[in-house]
Amino acid sequence: MYGAGDVRVVSVPDPSLRRPTDALVRVVQACVCGSDLHPYHNMAASPGGASMGHEFLGVVEDVGSEVATVRSGDLVVASFAWQDNTCDFCREGVQTSCRNGGYWNSGGTGGGQAEAVNVPFADGTLVKLPVAEDSALLPGLLTLADVLGTGHHAAVRAGVSPRTSVTVIGDGAVGLLAVLSAKRLGAERIILMGRHKDRTDLGREFGATEVVAERGDEGIAKVRDLTGGDGTHTVLECVGFLPAYEQALGVVRAGGVISRVGVPQYQDGNIGRSVFGRNVTLTGGVAPVRNYIEELMPDILDGAIEPGRVFDRTIGLEHTPDGYQAMDRREALKVLVRP
Amino acid sequence: MYGAGDVRVVSVPDPSLRRPTDALVRVVQACVCGSDLHPYHNMAASPGGASMGHEFLGVVEDVGSEVATVRSGDLVVASFAWQDNTCDFCREGVQTSCRNGGYWNSGGTGGGQAEAVNVPFADGTLVKLPVAEDSALLPGLLTLADVLGTGHHAAVRAGVSPRTSVTVIGDGAVGLLAVLSAKRLGAERIILMGRHKDRTDLGREFGATEVVAERGDEGIAKVRDLTGGDGTHTVLECVGFLPAYEQALGVVRAGGVISRVGVPQYQDGNIGRSVFGRNVTLTGGVAPVRNYIEELMPDILDGAIEPGRVFDRTIGLEHTPDGYQAMDRREALKVLVRP
Repeated sequence: MYGAGDVRVVSVPDPSLRRPTDALVRVVQACVCGSDLHPYHNMAASPGGASMGHEFLGVVEDVGSEVATVRSGDLVVASFAWQDNTCDFCREGVQTSCRNGGYWNSGGTGGGQAEAVNVPFADGTLVKLPVAEDSALLPGLLTLADVLGTGHHAAVRAGVSPRTSVTVIGDGAVGLLAVLSAKRLGAERIILMGRHKDRTDLGREFGATEVVAERGDEGIAKVRDLTGGDGTHTVLECVGFLPAYEQALGVVRAGGVISRVGVPQYQDGNIGRSVFGRNVTLTGGVAPVRNYIEELMPDILDGAIEPGRVFDRTIGLEHTPDGYQAMDRREALKVLVRP
Repeated sequence: MYGAGDVRVVSVPDPSLRRPTDALVRVVQACVCGSDLHPYHNMAASPGGASMGHEFLGVVEDVGSEVATVRSGDLVVASFAWQDNTCDFCREGVQTSCRNGGYWNSGGTGGGQAEAVNVPFADGTLVKLPVAEDSALLPGLLTLADVLGTGHHAAVRAGVSPRTSVTVIGDGAVGLLAVLSAKRLGAERIILMGRHKDRTDLGREFGATEVVAERGDEGIAKVRDLTGGDGTHTVLECVGFLPAYEQALGVVRAGGVISRVGVPQYQDGNIGRSVFGRNVTLTGGVAPVRNYIEELMPDILDGAIEPGRVFDRTIGLEHTPDGYQAMDRREALKVLVRP
């Protein structure tokens, strides 16, 4: 990406092993994230450009001398941040704060929207997939890299259980997979707030019991109406803009939890007496998806959940710019890229 | 209270039973709360005045026909809000959001800085104390009405356990009892941020392992130094002013929790990327102390904890104005009132 709206497919030198803990992965599937649209909207022009993409699965081509858990030929998925998965933060389940961690497209490491990626801390970052490269389950397994784990993080942090009612704000891929995650954790009532019928229809299939298309005060009033005036025990905020947070405040039940996984595009928000007086908890954050891969993968493998359904368009790497455009115009929910 | 700085002792009509669920309580001990100082600082002049005080214990003088759990002659403590303790919110542990609840000094119900109080929903609000009216344990039991339960709420909501390091911000009575509560829940490392040596000395006796007198950036740097740069897993914010919240943000560890029990004197605060990116949770709120009385009382009765030590001055009801002044001037930590 060379600036807002300026995505190009270019040839770069092949990545290579740089540390004994690295692995080299040939990308089989990657995708475009809703969060990639933020720089697509506002990135300053950059002559050098930035490598893009943080979600991919692929085949290990080579490993450094200290890599123990994956080997050449393994099909693997990477988490959207890398980590050693052994430090104290990792053990506490916040791998995104790993002492040795980092994000793709930084520090000389490229991104997943590419033919190949050099993976730091391969043992902590890659998880072997027990399927073949041509398995129909690959799109579902690709969601372990980010969107499914992110939706799950929202639900886990909120404490979703069979006893909690849920509102999910946002009908993007993360919002829809937050619905799926809430359903998977046993929630019986899931209100999805979203305006795009094709997306909320998929949300219903994922487990949403009600859809509220209205936004702002009107949307808040609708959810309150549906819940006897009280709101829901948990609110999964999967958008990231301030109005979505304010909507969350409006629909959360006293004693309840707002769990955010949409990257906040704001700094200050209302945490005053209306929050304090009602004992509302604000939690969530950038999802440590590595923490969840082993838990979620079996449900994808046995077909209990089908998170890969969020991909509604598949393109070749050479068409990646079109993929951004399609997602930006909301012509596509989430675009899968096959290098 | 007739306005900022204007506290008077006046004669008012005796309270009387108004509903069959009421009880009439003769106050034996009451006290002045740090939160009473907010109106003491900024209340607009009011010709009619406002009854004050929300912490008291006393002897039941009379009960309505539907009261089942207390009777005349019982020594009882009241929580700082009243509740039926049976509705769904009460069952979920947020009695402060009770469908039939309310706060003292509102809706025709007086406050605890008085000779007698009419108590709504006596069965949900009063808890019998198994000691005599002249027991030396009474000051400790009085803290069940608010400050101990509030400090405990901060610690419980933060998830304090033997595995979590703790920072307590504020050396008022709530802060000190948050220290005691964290210690009681097994925390081994408790850093108390406070500037008043006599108070932080008591904090050390309650369980603080380190005291940081510095505030703001300097205080943050000190706590970070003490924790290898990382901050603590939990931060109990017992002040309520915005700088205390900002201090909490500065000393909380990634993946950690800020639990607020100081009534926020601000509306907007930073909940942006530094909070989200580090998976920091913000929780706490007005403490549903009724939820905790049965759990905490045995430890007071058997002397395992001595929360009554926060009272460092005792006055008669007629000297209540002096009590406010002494707390406002920080000459007293917490003033006990004996009608």
